[in-house]
Amino acid sequence: MTHRVYNFNPGPATLPLPVLEEVREELLDFRGTGMSIMETSHRSPEYSEVHDGAASLALDLLGLSADDYAVLFLGGGASTQFYMIPQNLLAGGGKADYVRTGTWAKKAIQEAKLFGDVHIAHDAEDEQGRFAYVPAQDQLDLRDDAVYLHFTSNNTIAGTQFHEYPEPPEGVLLVADMSSDMLWREFDASRFAIIYAGAQKNLGPSGVTMVVFRRDVLDRCADGLPTMVSYRTHVEKNSLFNTPPCFPIYVVGKVLRWIEREGGLAAMGRKNREKGDLLYDLFDANPGFFRTPVRKDSRSYMNVVWRLPTEELERMFIAEAKDAGLVGLKGHRSVGGCRASIYNAMTLEGVKALADFLRDFVARHG
Amino acid sequence: MTHRVYNFNPGPATLPLPVLEEVREELLDFRGTGMSIMETSHRSPEYSEVHDGAASLALDLLGLSADDYAVLFLGGGASTQFYMIPQNLLAGGGKADYVRTGTWAKKAIQEAKLFGDVHIAHDAEDEQGRFAYVPAQDQLDLRDDAVYLHFTSNNTIAGTQFHEYPEPPEGVLLVADMSSDMLWREFDASRFAIIYAGAQKNLGPSGVTMVVFRRDVLDRCADGLPTMVSYRTHVEKNSLFNTPPCFPIYVVGKVLRWIEREGGLAAMGRKNREKGDLLYDLFDANPGFFRTPVRKDSRSYMNVVWRLPTEELERMFIAEAKDAGLVGLKGHRSVGGCRASIYNAMTLEGVKALADFLRDFVARHG
Repeated sequence: MTHRVYNFNPGPATLPLPVLEEVREELLDFRGTGMSIMETSHRSPEYSEVHDGAASLALDLLGLSADDYAVLFLGGGASTQFYMIPQNLLAGGGKADYVRTGTWAKKAIQEAKLFGDVHIAHDAEDEQGRFAYVPAQDQLDLRDDAVYLHFTSNNTIAGTQFHEYPEPPEGVLLVADMSSDMLWREFDASRFAIIYAGAQKNLGPSGVTMVVFRRDVLDRCADGLPTMVSYRTHVEKNSLFNTPPCFPIYVVGKVLRWIEREGGLAAMGRKNREKGDLLYDLFDANPGFFRTPVRKDSRSYMNVVWRLPTEELERMFIAEAKDAGLVGLKGHRSVGGCRASIYNAMTLEGVKALADFLRDFVARHG
Repeated sequence: MTHRVYNFNPGPATLPLPVLEEVREELLDFRGTGMSIMETSHRSPEYSEVHDGAASLALDLLGLSADDYAVLFLGGGASTQFYMIPQNLLAGGGKADYVRTGTWAKKAIQEAKLFGDVHIAHDAEDEQGRFAYVPAQDQLDLRDDAVYLHFTSNNTIAGTQFHEYPEPPEGVLLVADMSSDMLWREFDASRFAIIYAGAQKNLGPSGVTMVVFRRDVLDRCADGLPTMVSYRTHVEKNSLFNTPPCFPIYVVGKVLRWIEREGGLAAMGRKNREKGDLLYDLFDANPGFFRTPVRKDSRSYMNVVWRLPTEELERMFIAEAKDAGLVGLKGHRSVGGCRASIYNAMTLEGVKALADFLRDFVARHG
């Protein structure tokens, strides 16, 4: 019996066990080819099926058509999209509005400022440097002549999440970094011009970023960019201008198929609500012991953050939980506290085990 | 018994079987952590050991000191280095000399032209668009005031390889794309300012590029670049500014350890010479049947290319070889013919099997 823990790491994060088992099964001989998928040419029919299959399934899950959208698989992480987006769309000093809701939004803004006129549509940081909520539509100060509006749908560190997505003014493109909650529930993806997501939280292993790109946005992309920076290259070459990160893409494809088998985004959404509510209900029932720093309407169902009465109790909790096979519960070093990352691949069983452990911890220390 | 073929693909390419077996063994539980390496935080001690171990071993194999050189593991492929190098080093219109020896050199040159004054130190393309050799030192037209001299050490498509590396003028940095022959033999790495190599040929799976970067070159890198484009970011953050491609790096680390166990670069060099000579000697012994388009002094020991008397025989050979478990022998679509990619991980046994098959083919059709 393989030793497996409940892994609450924020990313790289837990993967569905059936996916890992399939990868292991095929590792030395991918579907009778006599070679590993890692050894397979990116121009081979076998790899093409993996690559195109993953892109096509992503579109299906999102309810998008391949006529309107391309799904790209790129290297360099979401941090590379932070500069590719403004470099493609703001050439010559175009305007972009950014919603500032956390660490990653800040980094995206920093890169955009190199290329254009960046306006902060809302800054959710308080005087202590905390990000405790995401803004509602009427709190956004939007420019009609911006090229795009950018927001981060889920803030991994702060533990906040948009439950209603921002609506840009007519003609302004909607762009989202969904690295930590891509495909967590059903949503209207057709409202977006670009969605990007580093895979290592909700989609697969690190090393690949999924970019859902509305094809007509190419008309607004700059010319004369380095080949690898231009979205035109990747859309036209189907992410095969050069050798893509084949193995990460292959695992993402398996995760997408697992999502489909589990019932698609509707099923993911139901399960994720149930998982998050298990924890939030427990915290709300014990307000004297647990403190939840995030405003209720902005609570993340992917990264649940909470504090205990003292930092000593937090350290004790994290250490005892680890001994009990519940790992990765330490909050981000910049904010402290505790955090459970419960992405799609975290089982209800895992969250129940955590809730049981928390109840027991309260009983002993509350 | 797992079905395995002899895989002569040019990249992604065959990996050492012991490496794949180790990966499979650890896939669900990496060293007792109860999680896959794909699920492990890039800030964890377990991953740090993998990451730093791979970088450190690469330096050891190259005979370089960590005081002088950093080893980076970046996403985006060698094609991303094509623009990062000039964008970092030619800001404000600096000069760079490029040796033009094939498809990938051409692509590197195209990107460099976006940033600086690019001069072709030698163009090895003939009137028919073929690249049949690499130039000697006295054929290079070098500028004393160039920032760097760039060359491609092995040309995967043409099947040519530098056996003596170019020597730049005093003060000019030497930069090499070694994507298809990195670590194939011993060489004086301390002559280089930057060596980069997409992993999927001689180092591991696709999705990561190894960059060997001389630390003092940072002094010559531009400021104000996008964070992910700046070498400063990656050297200072040890390739951990954002989540790196952890799994590809982990496999590269295992390949490096395999190289070390096999006897290091000296042993690689001996084995690669023996493998290449097996094929080239066979071709030279049968000049009426085999045609080798590459000049003898420029023959690649990584990608061996040859032609048969007719294209029909070539098609027949490739198909029959595949049926015999020798796959990936088709030449690149842009040049045709046959090609055997015999990187470090290709066994002597595999090349002997190919040589036997070729001898039999001559006997039947010669």
